Amino acid sequence: VKPISIRGKPAAGGKLPLLCAPLVGATREALLEEAAAVRAAAPDVFEWRVDFFRDLGDAKAVVETAQALRRALPGLPLLFTRRSAAEGGQRIGVTEGTVVEVYAAVCAAGAAELVDYEMSNPPEHMKAVREASRRHGVGLVCSYHNFQETPPEAELAARFRRARELGGDVAKVAVMPRSQGDVITLLSATLQASQQLDIPLISMSMGALGALSRIAGFAFGSALSFGVGAGAAAPGQKPIGELRSAIEITRKAMHG
Amino acid sequence: VKPISIRGKPAAGGKLPLLCAPLVGATREALLEEAAAVRAAAPDVFEWRVDFFRDLGDAKAVVETAQALRRALPGLPLLFTRRSAAEGGQRIGVTEGTVVEVYAAVCAAGAAELVDYEMSNPPEHMKAVREASRRHGVGLVCSYHNFQETPPEAELAARFRRARELGGDVAKVAVMPRSQGDVITLLSATLQASQQLDIPLISMSMGALGALSRIAGFAFGSALSFGVGAGAAAPGQKPIGELRSAIEITRKAMHG
Repeated sequence: VKPISIRGKPAAGGKLPLLCAPLVGATREALLEEAAAVRAAAPDVFEWRVDFFRDLGDAKAVVETAQALRRALPGLPLLFTRRSAAEGGQRIGVTEGTVVEVYAAVCAAGAAELVDYEMSNPPEHMKAVREASRRHGVGLVCSYHNFQETPPEAELAARFRRARELGGDVAKVAVMPRSQGDVITLLSATLQASQQLDIPLISMSMGALGALSRIAGFAFGSALSFGVGAGAAAPGQKPIGELRSAIEITRKAMHG
Repeated sequence: VKPISIRGKPAAGGKLPLLCAPLVGATREALLEEAAAVRAAAPDVFEWRVDFFRDLGDAKAVVETAQALRRALPGLPLLFTRRSAAEGGQRIGVTEGTVVEVYAAVCAAGAAELVDYEMSNPPEHMKAVREASRRHGVGLVCSYHNFQETPPEAELAARFRRARELGGDVAKVAVMPRSQGDVITLLSATLQASQQLDIPLISMSMGALGALSRIAGFAFGSALSFGVGAGAAAPGQKPIGELRSAIEITRKAMHG
């Protein structure tokens, strides 16, 4: 499993998987309250799901809030994410052009270590986010989400490859299972992609049915698992403490 | 997941997976000492690996020892197993004909609830064990083990089907992984067999690499997981207490 790097160094000393807690507050105040709870849960990375943020259209407010969150969570890398409504995020009243400007401002200010941008976005926007992030040493997580179903294994493989082709530093695939077989499909696609691609991967099968992928995905090539610090951002996310225990027990069983 | 039945009723009230501890002592005294340790670990079933027993050729000694073990582990169903050297068991100085007579004596005495007999045995012996076990209401676990490798998924599927064709009440497949992909192959074959066959299954991917299958196999159709009460009988078996914790955490994550 390839670890995720932050400014050229493996995050958290190369720990696998990284545990990442999302922040989903609508205001700076709500976010800072969440950050306090997240700090207690001691994740390795925190994700700001900025599609929940009321002032998403205001680049200055976004950068300042990101900096305030960094001060509240000292030493923790920030993954900056606008999840689109089409891929399970909140509806926002802001054009994609503005979103890209906000991403660029966050990168230019050094206000995030990683940004997540969806591969389904128009190529010119992906290109702009890729250039802004590269220029400022920010890692790009190129992502694909499907909250309806788990596409066939070949399609999942193509999504991982596409993330690499688009210049992603990390490829992320999150899909919804309808059966335990779908969980196997996601784990199998992840394992194959980890053998074929030279970038780290993040993958999960969502919902209760997919819980195993959040716990044991690291054994199949996933470098990061999302857990709840204060509020869940996707179905199936478990409290960080529970997630950590389950991962450690699995790891011990595999290496014992 | 179909539960394993004992004399017509789901074992342990239908609990899934059952936890089974092996006994591997060479003498009655050693076995009774092991039984005391196993009792403390509180499994749902115990397996007597009779290929380790010095007096395997003496049907009377075997039946009496089985009865003594039952008294030492009151209420726990006994899975009676002679594992052949070809499938990872101990070398024994007894003909297969004698082994079959011992199985028949154990069934006739009602000294076991389940017997494990390998599908690779000559058909006439399998038939004799099947008839003796059926006549006395003992369940037959028809098993396949491969300590060298994990055959392709289609071959694993054929092994599960073969167990059913031979009259098995339970089909067991235990194989050694050489990669994490082999663990996926075993889980996937188990899941498919659980959807296609009308009998309960036991499966595992052995060794450290396969540990996940012992913890999460129940989610893919395996009704029983082996854990160490006193002594391990196969590579990758974990202490029952650890196994139970890992299974409960996984189950909670999946149903939470």
